[in-house]
Amino acid sequence: MQTLRVELGERAYAIHIGERLLSAAELIVPQLDLPRAAIVTNTTVAPLYLEQLAGALRLRGVDVVSIVLEDGERYKDWTTLNRIYDALLERRCDRKTALIALGGGVVGDLAGFAAATYMRGIPFIQVPTTLLAQVDSSVGGKTGINHPLGKNMIGAFYQPRMVLADTKVLETLPPRELSAGLAEVIKHGLIRDGAFFAWLEQNMEKLLACNQDALAHAVRRCCEIKSAVVAADERETGVRALLNYGHTFGHAIESGLGYGKWLHGEAVAAGMVMAADLSRRMGLIAEDDVQRIVALLKRASLPTTPPDIAPERLLALMGVDKKTEGGKLRFILLDGIGAASLRADVPDGPLQQALAVSAAA
Amino acid sequence: MQTLRVELGERAYAIHIGERLLSAAELIVPQLDLPRAAIVTNTTVAPLYLEQLAGALRLRGVDVVSIVLEDGERYKDWTTLNRIYDALLERRCDRKTALIALGGGVVGDLAGFAAATYMRGIPFIQVPTTLLAQVDSSVGGKTGINHPLGKNMIGAFYQPRMVLADTKVLETLPPRELSAGLAEVIKHGLIRDGAFFAWLEQNMEKLLACNQDALAHAVRRCCEIKSAVVAADERETGVRALLNYGHTFGHAIESGLGYGKWLHGEAVAAGMVMAADLSRRMGLIAEDDVQRIVALLKRASLPTTPPDIAPERLLALMGVDKKTEGGKLRFILLDGIGAASLRADVPDGPLQQALAVSAAA
Repeated sequence: MQTLRVELGERAYAIHIGERLLSAAELIVPQLDLPRAAIVTNTTVAPLYLEQLAGALRLRGVDVVSIVLEDGERYKDWTTLNRIYDALLERRCDRKTALIALGGGVVGDLAGFAAATYMRGIPFIQVPTTLLAQVDSSVGGKTGINHPLGKNMIGAFYQPRMVLADTKVLETLPPRELSAGLAEVIKHGLIRDGAFFAWLEQNMEKLLACNQDALAHAVRRCCEIKSAVVAADERETGVRALLNYGHTFGHAIESGLGYGKWLHGEAVAAGMVMAADLSRRMGLIAEDDVQRIVALLKRASLPTTPPDIAPERLLALMGVDKKTEGGKLRFILLDGIGAASLRADVPDGPLQQALAVSAAA
Repeated sequence: MQTLRVELGERAYAIHIGERLLSAAELIVPQLDLPRAAIVTNTTVAPLYLEQLAGALRLRGVDVVSIVLEDGERYKDWTTLNRIYDALLERRCDRKTALIALGGGVVGDLAGFAAATYMRGIPFIQVPTTLLAQVDSSVGGKTGINHPLGKNMIGAFYQPRMVLADTKVLETLPPRELSAGLAEVIKHGLIRDGAFFAWLEQNMEKLLACNQDALAHAVRRCCEIKSAVVAADERETGVRALLNYGHTFGHAIESGLGYGKWLHGEAVAAGMVMAADLSRRMGLIAEDDVQRIVALLKRASLPTTPPDIAPERLLALMGVDKKTEGGKLRFILLDGIGAASLRADVPDGPLQQALAVSAAA
């Protein structure tokens, strides 16, 4: 097991990474205020892993309530959130009941927002079961739900007390979801660590085969990168925005298609290529860099061109994205493989060309 | 104008108290990230004061969006909250748009929770227009909405950047609402400041007549007491619970009657008498103390006995109150006029008697 600490002052917490952490109740129990926990999971994860976690906790005397949600991004809404509130109230869970998210990003976002807002905040623990959640959504405290007018529009920053990333559970992940997680892994290399990007080029096949050492290294490195960025800028007023590389386009793709058609990581993969293409058009990176990115994404079985959505619609969808500021669109662009920056100075020409190329692809 | 600072480290903020602060846009503008603000108010306050505030801001170049909600505690729910989200999204308000709450406690709670959760948090300013909101709900960062199974069950701690308490607007407050605010004023004296309680005994008529100096003194003293308590315990893990004096019974009364039948302050007034009666039964205060409390509340035109709700129903309603911990009921009791403490050791006997007396009243 490897342990990493996210330095956030009074909100600091540990991320444990390794095999079979799902039943490591001895790590969870010291984090509880009372021996009472509500596990939020979904219908896909529950049959595979709920009993492992709940059973281990019960063996240590923890009273466990299970809340099983429907699976899918389209359930990341108020109705599902309310099911969590209802269950917590019906089971008389109080402010000292810990909420444990067992699942992927959707479960983590929903459960995290429920924990942030139930009785104005209860203890929260993340047990991410997808690669995407392990490298991304379980670190940094972003929680929330979607609104018909935009993704993640309603939410809160709320830090967990602990994250348990069990790499063994990734073996049961459908290949398409493993790939979607790899999109975010590649993103971490792209924005902050060229050497890690090169390591990924050398180890992509091991990751796709769920080699445990390779997965643990990738999860650890992503968590290190992300937690350093988050520690520097918890509420995303500056450098944290770089983690959204590929997401401005990606969110527009997800929103344009309707949530759930493409996986988040797939939309981000195509979005990263669009942002790389825009970076090249701005003269920031070379065509060779774009091709290296496209090649690695393809090896990870990820899409590298967006679906057929008209440029003006993508632009409109980006207009309500959270990354706009004072009405002006900002983009995270690459200055090289391993370095990104936030720019508000993107001229219309290159942007229109980048969007038009994608529409023609 | 008097100014008070709530010391909460990086979340510290100022409370300005005085006449005609509603149009003091020069105080608001420096708090904005961009010259853009959304004012959330209700149908009662809007015709009286919206234009004063919005006009003053527009004169200083601020782009103002107005969101006018229905008036009443029964609208403090998800549907109304969603109207705020919808309006913010439709008007393309981004993360740097400030949200200004202009109204009483319901507007403040709703708008504050919207500000806490819209795009994971936007700047928030409180302009409370009721005495209750000025002395209580605008200080301390509690925001939230009701759930069918309990009051304020969904919410967040979210601090405003500034509070403007304009005592002049209290002149248009219906007498019943002024009295409801006085219930919380009296509570502040009861739990922390016997001398202030005595001052209230001497100045109740001035307060009821909206004497501006008396109101400013009362608002200031309450804000001082509350902000000191909140600074010591922002997230209510200890001493802050004392601010809930009278609220365990009060919330049960509100919930039992259905929200909105009694004003919050009225339910708290009756709840404070019940808690004083329970304190006397526990031998903590004298019958004379109870009578002083009842007399002052009566002079403020407040109810001193609860409505007709069966003791077992009140008890059930208190069971899901946030102030329960690990399933055990805790009560805030008086140790004298000006001193309160949190107790988990209330025997069934005195509790049943206190509830039975109220049912018979």
